[in-house]
Amino acid sequence: MHWMLVFAVLPFHFGLFAAGPLDGITDVAGVRVAHVTKVEGTDIRTGATAVLPNADPWDHKVSAAFFAFNGNGELTGTHWMEESGYLEEPVVLTDTLDVGRASDGVVSWVIEHHPHVGRGDDVPLPVVGECDDGLLNDIQARAVGAGDVVSLLDSAKPGQFARGSVGAGTGMNAFGFRAGIGSASRVLPTDAGGYHVGVLVNDNTSSSRRQLTIVGVPVGERLRNEYRAVFPKPVSLKGRLGSGSIIIVVATDAPLDSRQLRALALRASMGMARTGLTSSVGSGDLIVAFSTSRIFERTADFTVAGPSAPILENDDTLNALYSATAEAAQAAIYDALFEATTMTGRGGVTVYALPVDRVLSMLRDAGAISGP
Amino acid sequence: MHWMLVFAVLPFHFGLFAAGPLDGITDVAGVRVAHVTKVEGTDIRTGATAVLPNADPWDHKVSAAFFAFNGNGELTGTHWMEESGYLEEPVVLTDTLDVGRASDGVVSWVIEHHPHVGRGDDVPLPVVGECDDGLLNDIQARAVGAGDVVSLLDSAKPGQFARGSVGAGTGMNAFGFRAGIGSASRVLPTDAGGYHVGVLVNDNTSSSRRQLTIVGVPVGERLRNEYRAVFPKPVSLKGRLGSGSIIIVVATDAPLDSRQLRALALRASMGMARTGLTSSVGSGDLIVAFSTSRIFERTADFTVAGPSAPILENDDTLNALYSATAEAAQAAIYDALFEATTMTGRGGVTVYALPVDRVLSMLRDAGAISGP
Amino acid sequence: MHWMLVFAVLPFHFGLFAAGPLDGITDVAGVRVAHVTKVEGTDIRTGATAVLPNADPWDHKVSAAFFAFNGNGELTGTHWMEESGYLEEPVVLTDTLDVGRASDGVVSWVIEHHPHVGRGDDVPLPVVGECDDGLLNDIQARAVGAGDVVSLLDSAKPGQFARGSVGAGTGMNAFGFRAGIGSASRVLPTDAGGYHVGVLVNDNTSSSRRQLTIVGVPVGERLRNEYRAVFPKPVSLKGRLGSGSIIIVVATDAPLDSRQLRALALRASMGMARTGLTSSVGSGDLIVAFSTSRIFERTADFTVAGPSAPILENDDTLNALYSATAEAAQAAIYDALFEATTMTGRGGVTVYALPVDRVLSMLRDAGAISGP
Amino acid sequence: MHWMLVFAVLPFHFGLFAAGPLDGITDVAGVRVAHVTKVEGTDIRTGATAVLPNADPWDHKVSAAFFAFNGNGELTGTHWMEESGYLEEPVVLTDTLDVGRASDGVVSWVIEHHPHVGRGDDVPLPVVGECDDGLLNDIQARAVGAGDVVSLLDSAKPGQFARGSVGAGTGMNAFGFRAGIGSASRVLPTDAGGYHVGVLVNDNTSSSRRQLTIVGVPVGERLRNEYRAVFPKPVSLKGRLGSGSIIIVVATDAPLDSRQLRALALRASMGMARTGLTSSVGSGDLIVAFSTSRIFERTADFTVAGPSAPILENDDTLNALYSATAEAAQAAIYDALFEATTMTGRGGVTVYALPVDRVLSMLRDAGAISGP
Repeated sequence: MHWMLVFAVLPFHFGLFAAGPLDGITDVAGVRVAHVTKVEGTDIRTGATAVLPNADPWDHKVSAAFFAFNGNGELTGTHWMEESGYLEEPVVLTDTLDVGRASDGVVSWVIEHHPHVGRGDDVPLPVVGECDDGLLNDIQARAVGAGDVVSLLDSAKPGQFARGSVGAGTGMNAFGFRAGIGSASRVLPTDAGGYHVGVLVNDNTSSSRRQLTIVGVPVGERLRNEYRAVFPKPVSLKGRLGSGSIIIVVATDAPLDSRQLRALALRASMGMARTGLTSSVGSGDLIVAFSTSRIFERTADFTVAGPSAPILENDDTLNALYSATAEAAQAAIYDALFEATTMTGRGGVTVYALPVDRVLSMLRDAGAISGP
Repeated sequence: MHWMLVFAVLPFHFGLFAAGPLDGITDVAGVRVAHVTKVEGTDIRTGATAVLPNADPWDHKVSAAFFAFNGNGELTGTHWMEESGYLEEPVVLTDTLDVGRASDGVVSWVIEHHPHVGRGDDVPLPVVGECDDGLLNDIQARAVGAGDVVSLLDSAKPGQFARGSVGAGTGMNAFGFRAGIGSASRVLPTDAGGYHVGVLVNDNTSSSRRQLTIVGVPVGERLRNEYRAVFPKPVSLKGRLGSGSIIIVVATDAPLDSRQLRALALRASMGMARTGLTSSVGSGDLIVAFSTSRIFERTADFTVAGPSAPILENDDTLNALYSATAEAAQAAIYDALFEATTMTGRGGVTVYALPVDRVLSMLRDAGAISGP
Repeated sequence: MHWMLVFAVLPFHFGLFAAGPLDGITDVAGVRVAHVTKVEGTDIRTGATAVLPNADPWDHKVSAAFFAFNGNGELTGTHWMEESGYLEEPVVLTDTLDVGRASDGVVSWVIEHHPHVGRGDDVPLPVVGECDDGLLNDIQARAVGAGDVVSLLDSAKPGQFARGSVGAGTGMNAFGFRAGIGSASRVLPTDAGGYHVGVLVNDNTSSSRRQLTIVGVPVGERLRNEYRAVFPKPVSLKGRLGSGSIIIVVATDAPLDSRQLRALALRASMGMARTGLTSSVGSGDLIVAFSTSRIFERTADFTVAGPSAPILENDDTLNALYSATAEAAQAAIYDALFEATTMTGRGGVTVYALPVDRVLSMLRDAGAISGP
Repeated sequence: MHWMLVFAVLPFHFGLFAAGPLDGITDVAGVRVAHVTKVEGTDIRTGATAVLPNADPWDHKVSAAFFAFNGNGELTGTHWMEESGYLEEPVVLTDTLDVGRASDGVVSWVIEHHPHVGRGDDVPLPVVGECDDGLLNDIQARAVGAGDVVSLLDSAKPGQFARGSVGAGTGMNAFGFRAGIGSASRVLPTDAGGYHVGVLVNDNTSSSRRQLTIVGVPVGERLRNEYRAVFPKPVSLKGRLGSGSIIIVVATDAPLDSRQLRALALRASMGMARTGLTSSVGSGDLIVAFSTSRIFERTADFTVAGPSAPILENDDTLNALYSATAEAAQAAIYDALFEATTMTGRGGVTVYALPVDRVLSMLRDAGAISGP
């Protein structure tokens, strides 16, 4: 466990708010995460990651919202999320061409636990997001099957979890470095309610290397010509390193309604902006935000009860949540870069990890972080 | 062919605009439709329907828009449609629990025709919509497979096509009658450009029987206590006859951009309203609209060229298109009711077709339609 | 008072729900309405109308939502309404060129009652909507002043109010007939909560005469060539009779949040559709909906308390509210036509009122309404 | 002129793109700006600023879009901008309580130049945005009159213009410093079309002082306890220093449609985020973006012709525009801070300007900027 704590959190801290003990989305009580990673042969570099607001969101729907900062991507299930104001499915992330299979897996999992769905009970509308890992992964192979997703969802649990090149993050790249799953959290002071905000990202954003900024330091500009990906054979990069996507999941235990959670989703985009990322035409920069403390319970007769908690309406606390969300999203993107590892994949392409020690030196030299 | 024309179009006409020769979405040149129908044993009553703006929308993307009138449903692929302003996939409709499998089938079909997707070329984001046919169909069986959808897409062709209880419409019900696929078209006068508008619906709306209004005549009120569905065993109808959904696809050959097509989608909802339908909390009333004459061509190097046609900016013509869209949507919903047939399905449940002759008499008696 | 009750409501009833005692928006307890009418000389035919959710919405903000069905018009103050989920101003309707002056009047009125606004207290963002009455009114004269609006707001009161060619409705036309202010209400059965929905419209929609449909009867088609407006001098009608707008205000005492009220606003558009109206390119068809029973109280230190009531989450009741809203909106549009009177205005233009007796005969003959 | 150039641009440069010669929104050819400043007695500290896409936007409407990042504010005229996809009015900025009067002034100005408006020609829907300057200004006095706005619009001209505490920026504050009007521009390389992006902001954002970050340097944290505003008498700051707003106007000469301009508006929010600003609950962070090269001409018979230019559809160029917009927005916010001057206003409150020399030293010491 000690090992996990050391490696699974960002090796520096920034911002106005403290991080939670896990510095991850699971600092929001009840939230569960799991990964399935597919690294097979020379060409399969993919996987899937699940985030659940609680053990059974079908029975315990949670207040939720969605915002597409740039829509070149998929996150299914958003029409109902926006209409109902709640999330009643796990959020599953995978590669672009496996969205259908993952969605089918979610259906199987819901049926397994709720045998009446589509037979008196309502029908599930899976929430599956994607990023394109075709640079390192043979995405046409569709290596993630429906069965993998059933197992994935059964394995989700609270507590610490792996980051970087795992699960849906296995084949991801950002700013020309390896990236993938990142996470971070922030905790409000007790006099602002002591609420938690946790963010998990699957970071496949590219933007140009030059734009990467870490806590204000132009790291990308300084590493502009180093650690460039290696392509044994000439390869068309149209829509590959030049484009990219990020899925952002924001969780909080503050009792917010869908309107307020949409505001949180927008603040997550501010964290994204502070990393230097521009959100390109070819990006699927899709954000979902939910509150674990405003629950719509499923009743025995398959109807839905009103939300369990009144909404928060204090400007100062909300503003703190907004700032904390932006910080956590920014930190989660850094986390994805700091945890990812160099990988060689399809066609012998190699993408390098961020040189963590050099970057930490740069940050220290600039006075942006302190410590050894 | 005569037989088809007689049975596949609504037996009366209304509105300010003429219908096209097929009185269907395929009156818009280039549009292709196909169905796969699954009626197996006592419990499988489902299928899938495809609508394509042209033979290969991946290469010939078309200006498009989306509007969720009520979002308790799924139509995937809309984030990119809204961001790009175009549609580059077929629109596939099926039952709710087969969305993932159908989506996987669309991926297979695109790969088959475009082997570079995900390998230099971009990745497809399937557009799959659903309605819940669990009243008549064993929806958990997920009878529509990915392979069915590949065949479906290969079989799509221009010209007349079947309506009613076929394809994705196989298990549908509306206003307590059998429903499913309906279609209609309207043609603008030559001095308004002679443009065509075609609508295809998969109608599973319920609202109450009493609300059904056909060209102004309160047919539902008059048939309030007749032709009620028969349930051999008591069955929970929560979210079944009491709820429902409609997917509406609007096609036009007028050169419109996504902003204008969103306005057309809203006018389709006006046609929906004129049938008496209210769009309930449990409805997935999702509308997609596209223009076949404003094309974004895919280039040899996998980029996208600017749209092929300037947009229409004449208010009178646009207003005529708006009215024609509302008329075609209203007619398409009636068509679904008039073409559907009585069916017995899962658990011995029987849902009756609209009594066409009685209804036509009512309409004639009220002076709402003329003819024998 | 008896006279008022007889003349101020639609002379027939339709739909699934009963009308309230006033058949108007003021059937929702607490709602207040007032008019100021400006008919001066030969050319001034304008005015303003106010709708307040309660006596002081600045102190008692109410849950609210906005939807632009077609945006060629103005309703100010909607960004904050959408962000906050509440309405904290009166809704004031007037002619297009007087929006600024009316807005200034609202500011004066709020300052008068809340001397700290902008001095420690927040600042008001007026909610002012418009329709273009330039056909009958010398709109450039801007006859409605800020002072008129202060008086208007002071005079608003619960209870019955005038409809037709009064207030903001003074110069309005719809379907080529005189129109203006209309209102209607619906009451849910006791077992569905007994909630009220009231609608007030300022109807200046034109669409073509031919499209006017009253409870299913194609009245416009039958009166196609009669009661046409008279123009002493040739006049450009571009953007006049050929276009038009409608502002719709929906009030309910059901405790709904902004997300649900947006759904109500969409259902009001369904009522609009059932009158035959298409919503043209040149229309400002803008809808605001609020709930009088979900209140955000202003506190002594100028902050806002959380909403006073949990939201309703019962599908059957919500569906009834949806249907009732569509009915009330449809009835309110008819009411505007039935209450309006023939008027001669700017340049000697005469627009005729709907021939009420003839229309009632048509409706009776078609069996659409009963009674003498 | 030399003097202007020295003082009206930011004293450092950052980012991937060069600034235009004026480093302001008027680097986009045709764009015009004007200010009217009201500094009277001890308590009036307000004004208005106009931005025009060309000399007469009523005749030469320009492709446009709107996005409300946080909606606690007003920018009128957005429903029609969103429906039509164009802007046909000047954008006028002023204080919150003068929106109505400014709107009335815009109407007067349009009538003056287009005597047929509301008399055959369409009616103007003014575009007026606001920020609350009640901390330094007696906002209830409503010092900006309709006549001021007519003069303002007549005086708008291309070329360099004043920044900082002028026009609508007169009473503004941000991060606890004086702020107001800022502007900046970026020019794309010739091989990316050589397009220009210019941004003008009226910056009244507060967020906390501590969040201010200038090109990555945590300037706000370092000046946390200095240059704090001075209040001679205790004053309620609820909704004052703790809240705030920003209006952002983005102009480009790249031919974009409204959908693409909305994407530019979102990228402006990324620039906003990079200054450390969080966009609080009480902020009206409203963004309008327009293209001067995609024009909808008004015809002699008062109709509107289709857009003059096909849209740009090259991903690389669009991505460069996105990045350039974020850079220009970030720079414009810094410009507002660097140009503003210390001011004493209503009730003797003093707000200090950013200590420019100290801040430049900090930036140089951190290696964030170079030069003397």
